[in-house]
Amino acid sequence: MGIVIYGASKATCTQRILATLIEKGVTDYELKTINLRAKEHKQPEYLKKQPFGVIPVLEDGDFLLHESRAICYYIASKYADQGVKLLPDPTDLKGNATFQKWASVEKDNWDNYASPIAFEKIFKVFRGGSPDPKLLEHYEAGFLPKLDVFEGILSKQQYMGGDEFSLIDVYYLPYTQKLFEAGYGHFITDRPHIKAWWDRVSARESWQKVLALP
Amino acid sequence: MGIVIYGASKATCTQRILATLIEKGVTDYELKTINLRAKEHKQPEYLKKQPFGVIPVLEDGDFLLHESRAICYYIASKYADQGVKLLPDPTDLKGNATFQKWASVEKDNWDNYASPIAFEKIFKVFRGGSPDPKLLEHYEAGFLPKLDVFEGILSKQQYMGGDEFSLIDVYYLPYTQKLFEAGYGHFITDRPHIKAWWDRVSARESWQKVLALP
Repeated sequence: MGIVIYGASKATCTQRILATLIEKGVTDYELKTINLRAKEHKQPEYLKKQPFGVIPVLEDGDFLLHESRAICYYIASKYADQGVKLLPDPTDLKGNATFQKWASVEKDNWDNYASPIAFEKIFKVFRGGSPDPKLLEHYEAGFLPKLDVFEGILSKQQYMGGDEFSLIDVYYLPYTQKLFEAGYGHFITDRPHIKAWWDRVSARESWQKVLALP
Repeated sequence: MGIVIYGASKATCTQRILATLIEKGVTDYELKTINLRAKEHKQPEYLKKQPFGVIPVLEDGDFLLHESRAICYYIASKYADQGVKLLPDPTDLKGNATFQKWASVEKDNWDNYASPIAFEKIFKVFRGGSPDPKLLEHYEAGFLPKLDVFEGILSKQQYMGGDEFSLIDVYYLPYTQKLFEAGYGHFITDRPHIKAWWDRVSARESWQKVLALP
C-alpha cells in the first residue's frame, strides 16, 4: 500500500507535499481530504494523528508523521533513487548540515513573515475577519530587510539551497505564491534576482500541476 | 585545528551550540567573541560569513555554516561517535523524518512565540525600548493553546523528541530559559508535565555549565 496524506489540495502545507510527490515521481499515494469547514481536523480521531489539530499528516503503514516539511523530507529520502534529487546523500555530513542551514533560513527569514502576512490578508478575511494593520506593519517591517539579503544571496546562487533546485525551494513554494494573492507580489517582482528565482521555481511542472488541482 | 564558533557566550543561539559541544564532549573548539555593541556582526568581513548579520557562525577549516540549529546538527553529526547520542543514525529513514518533525514543532509552536516574547520583554528593553503590549498579547494568545498541546505530548513522552534526551531538547533550552527571565516562567511551571521536562533538561550539567559561563 502506498502512503496516505491527510490534507486538502488547496491548503498551503499540503501543496508543499504534493509538489514533492510530483518532483519525486511518486504516484502510489492517496490524498484523503480533511474537511476543514466541518472541523474534521479538531475531532478526537484526527487529533490522535496530529495533536496540534492542523493538516497535513502522512501515514505510511503504521508510521505516522506530521509537519509538512518533515513529510517532504521523508518522501524525498524514501524515494531518493527516483525523480529529481532533492536532498543530499544521508552520509554527506556537510551537505546535510548545509541543507539544515537553508531550511532554517527559510523558516526564520521568509516563512516567519510571509505566513502571518498571508494569514492576515487571506485566511483571516476568508473567515470573516479583517487584517490587523498594526500586525501587517510589524511583519512587513521585519520582512523588508531580509528580502534585501535574499536578493544578495540569489545574486550568487540560482536556488534557495544552492546552485541546484532542491527540497529547500519546495519549502518556499506555497507561501511565496500566497504573497501574490495577498497583494505583496511586488516584494518579489521588485527584486530582480528574487524574481528570476521565483520565475524558475514557480514555472516547474510540479508546481503548475499542484496549482491546477481541483 | 578544531572548529571556531563566532558568537557570544551569553547570547541565546550561541548557548544552544555550546550546550551541544558539551553534550558531545567536544573540547577542541574556540569561541571567538563577536562584539555586538561595537556592531562587529554588521561589518563587511562578518557579513561575508553570515549575510543576515547575526550570530553565530561556525567555521571548520574552509567550511562555513550559519543558523544555530544547523550548527548543532553539524556538531552532533560530526561527533556522532562520542558523548551523548543526540541524533538518529544517518540512514535511519523514519528516525530522521521524526527528528525533522520534532524540529519543526519546536520552531513553529514554541520558538515562534517564546522568541518574540523574549525580544519584547528583554532585548528591546536592553536597547532602551519598551515592550509593545499589543504584540505581547498577540504572541501570548498564540502560545497558550500550543502550551496545552505540549502538556499532552509530554504526558506521553519524557523529552521533546521522544523518550530520550536529544538534540531537539537542546534546541529548546535558550528561549525556554529566557521565558523565565521575561516573567513568563508560569507558562512552564503551571503545567506539570512541561515543568517536569524542564526540570530534567535544565538540570543537565551541559546547560548548567553554559549558564555559568562568564
